[in-house]
Amino acid sequence: MSFYIEKGEKAMKLGEIGEFGLIEKLREMTGCGKGVVVGIGDDCAVLRSKRKGWYDLLTIDTLVEGVHFRPEDPPSKVGRKAMAINISDIAAMGGLPGYAVISLAAPRDYDSDKAKTIYRGMKNIAEKYSVDIVGGDTVRSPKNLVITVALTGSVEKHKAAFRSGARPGNRIYVTGTLGGSIFGKHLSFTPRVDEARFLVDKSHVTSMIDLSDGLASDLRRVLDESLVGAAVRAESIPVSTVAGKRWKELKKTPLEMALTDGEDFELLFTVPSKETEVLEAKWRRNFKLRLTCIGEITRTRSFNIIDKNGKRKDIAKTGYDHFR
Amino acid sequence: MSFYIEKGEKAMKLGEIGEFGLIEKLREMTGCGKGVVVGIGDDCAVLRSKRKGWYDLLTIDTLVEGVHFRPEDPPSKVGRKAMAINISDIAAMGGLPGYAVISLAAPRDYDSDKAKTIYRGMKNIAEKYSVDIVGGDTVRSPKNLVITVALTGSVEKHKAAFRSGARPGNRIYVTGTLGGSIFGKHLSFTPRVDEARFLVDKSHVTSMIDLSDGLASDLRRVLDESLVGAAVRAESIPVSTVAGKRWKELKKTPLEMALTDGEDFELLFTVPSKETEVLEAKWRRNFKLRLTCIGEITRTRSFNIIDKNGKRKDIAKTGYDHFR
Repeated sequence: MSFYIEKGEKAMKLGEIGEFGLIEKLREMTGCGKGVVVGIGDDCAVLRSKRKGWYDLLTIDTLVEGVHFRPEDPPSKVGRKAMAINISDIAAMGGLPGYAVISLAAPRDYDSDKAKTIYRGMKNIAEKYSVDIVGGDTVRSPKNLVITVALTGSVEKHKAAFRSGARPGNRIYVTGTLGGSIFGKHLSFTPRVDEARFLVDKSHVTSMIDLSDGLASDLRRVLDESLVGAAVRAESIPVSTVAGKRWKELKKTPLEMALTDGEDFELLFTVPSKETEVLEAKWRRNFKLRLTCIGEITRTRSFNIIDKNGKRKDIAKTGYDHFR
Repeated sequence: MSFYIEKGEKAMKLGEIGEFGLIEKLREMTGCGKGVVVGIGDDCAVLRSKRKGWYDLLTIDTLVEGVHFRPEDPPSKVGRKAMAINISDIAAMGGLPGYAVISLAAPRDYDSDKAKTIYRGMKNIAEKYSVDIVGGDTVRSPKNLVITVALTGSVEKHKAAFRSGARPGNRIYVTGTLGGSIFGKHLSFTPRVDEARFLVDKSHVTSMIDLSDGLASDLRRVLDESLVGAAVRAESIPVSTVAGKRWKELKKTPLEMALTDGEDFELLFTVPSKETEVLEAKWRRNFKLRLTCIGEITRTRSFNIIDKNGKRKDIAKTGYDHFR
């Protein structure tokens, strides 16, 4: 997120800059005090903690009616999603979620039963992940419902997984299957806290991110933060069943969906190549969830997708950008 | 804030319940884990800290275009306000602000220069109060700009000022002058962090709140949390100059404005009566800002305003309620 524009640069609409640009620009303006380990540019802000050996985490996410959910979506699932996207951000750092505060902006005539059900949806998933909802703010909105959740968390310093740690030769993994989240998963996904904790406990995760904007966009973020490239085998990308079935409705191929659809909220992470065999074996003993090695980190800064004939394609920035 | 409705209770619109009702209802549903000192019902959530002798604080507030500011208001002041209202919540606990995360929901065609200026407004006031902006989220909004800030803070356990500590015989004070904030102060007020820190350092503040919804509403909150009443002398209420001048525009008397206008963001607090003389003398040596004793806390649960003839009036719930 950022709003800073260079002097002399032509004034632009937010839609022209896009969210990636905004984040870059904001970073330039954001002060980093002594307590800040990572500010803008990761899934959470990472802060020095008074608890020895730990970092504090802080994240915020907003859902807007008509953008992130439809007015006719079940309110309990909308509430669930508002909380779950924040829990997923904590998971992406390898952390444990803590306390949540909620802000709801609702039209004057919004049905209070629906509001109650939104809150119940939040509370149910919060309880599952030991999150305490400790406060909030309710304000009037002229038209659309806007739900914001801010969430604290914590992670052991030596386990914290940043976007910036991927190294050449590391293997790239994703959990679950990708694409077509819009057909339902975006409202019902499971934040991968248990899986992320397992990963940072059992292996030396070098980088991690949750897939909120699509594999192509989110892997690019890791590459940009880590100053490395990637070679991803198209055939290895785990395409979801729904993407395989309903791709015509989105006018994309199933592979394009897996690469560019947002809101899968699976984990993308990298580990040293020598750890992969043991990690995969341990994973299978602990989770039914699919774990797939999709490629490896390269020294060259390109981002290549390799097709089944071995042909490489350096893909441009794609994926769901909130302002485009 | 709350959405919970009793079983069998008729479904209501949020506008009918009002924010007070919502907060009460939410409280019933909110889990209070071991780490939570105060959840819903104070200016901030108060959490047990890993830092010995301190509490952690967490708060969130949202500004909506068309509700809390007008599209034509200067963007830097809008940004300033979004940050300042959160800083004011930390001040109301006697605390020190820490880290902020921001969420901005903006229409696709929102001017990026304006967005940048909003952010600068936030950053300028954040720096003045040693707040680090450490991250955020930017999303698309169909129509109105919605700005949410979540802010952490900390306060020494023995200095923390809750809403629930007012005791019969305590004197009730307010800082500054009240009423007519809509004419400008709501965009330019000073969060009373220095003043609040002085108060919790130099006296035994028994309760404190920031005046966000109006003296009548906010004092009632203190009374409800502390299970006490109040007798306030109408003549002592420090009416702002602008309320004295422009009351006809709002169709209220200046006193009504001072009692019911929201967003003054001054401090309302209570102290033991024996401390008042020393406190007032120390205050005058440190601040030019007006400090006024407006009445005292009573054992009976009524909330009386006493006019210049000594006539008492038990005032009903009034003040700016976001949903009404």
